[in-house]
Amino acid sequence: MLQEAPIRIIGIDPGLRRTGWGVVETQSNSLRFVASGMVTSDAALDLAGRLCQLHDGLTEIIRTHQPDEAAVEQTFVNKDAVATLKLGQARGIALLVPAMAGLPVAEYAPNAVKKAVIGVGHGEKRQIHMMVKVLMPKATFNTDDAADALAIAICHSHHRQSAKARALASLG
Amino acid sequence: MLQEAPIRIIGIDPGLRRTGWGVVETQSNSLRFVASGMVTSDAALDLAGRLCQLHDGLTEIIRTHQPDEAAVEQTFVNKDAVATLKLGQARGIALLVPAMAGLPVAEYAPNAVKKAVIGVGHGEKRQIHMMVKVLMPKATFNTDDAADALAIAICHSHHRQSAKARALASLG
Repeated sequence: MLQEAPIRIIGIDPGLRRTGWGVVETQSNSLRFVASGMVTSDAALDLAGRLCQLHDGLTEIIRTHQPDEAAVEQTFVNKDAVATLKLGQARGIALLVPAMAGLPVAEYAPNAVKKAVIGVGHGEKRQIHMMVKVLMPKATFNTDDAADALAIAICHSHHRQSAKARALASLG
Repeated sequence: MLQEAPIRIIGIDPGLRRTGWGVVETQSNSLRFVASGMVTSDAALDLAGRLCQLHDGLTEIIRTHQPDEAAVEQTFVNKDAVATLKLGQARGIALLVPAMAGLPVAEYAPNAVKKAVIGVGHGEKRQIHMMVKVLMPKATFNTDDAADALAIAICHSHHRQSAKARALASLG
């Protein structure tokens, strides 16, 4: 039986001040931590300049880690329209950069990410971080944003596996 | 007395489906129409693909018309959070593209644009279009989005003139 080629996934948790990112490698049912971190923007710059910083930072990470696919968290739409607009602007960049690099970009709602990682659609950040560590013992992350981004990447690895299983089953 | 060099301004009215743009040239107190139009995205594509289309379209327009400065409308934040988020994502691209091309990017609220063009901070679209025609008789635009983008460029040309006048007066 041929072994499948490993697939690299970058998960992105967008934010204007801090955009978390995490890269994992998946092969059959195994999951391997590659790298994680955070791209920040300088609040002293104007908005356009901050978006350029996010753009350049994410472009550099994709160049360095060469992921095959990307997954971006679907922003939580809260009641503060000004915050929603800010997040939307950062999210535009988080979707644009991998797409411009030719990667397919999947989007997942926060509760889908939680369900993939902790088994239920609700839960605290602490639980997500713990499960990221359980699923990938070698994972290192020193920020919430990086841990969340890894959870998004894990979520995508699960969904692409089940999509493939469904496709194989239908060939039956 | 030396004549000032003309300055080219691109005005951008961001939107996910349609992003309007208008380029004007200003020299001393004169205003000249250069070009205007619309960049559209294909609703059949996923969000990341649509943002790439806006990115590529705006990049091409800046390459063709070589503006010196950019002005982008500050999005109206309405009560629909989903629409605000969508607009935010398109607006992220509208701010990013000129900034990546090295242009300073100014932002103006809709009522500042109306005030610059029709003299008051409120008014109908029809009035804005009429005044764009009065201020630049040679302007051609066949969409609301292009006319709005020209109004944003005109607004920026007024504001940069008054900023310069204030700077000169303070040297006085």
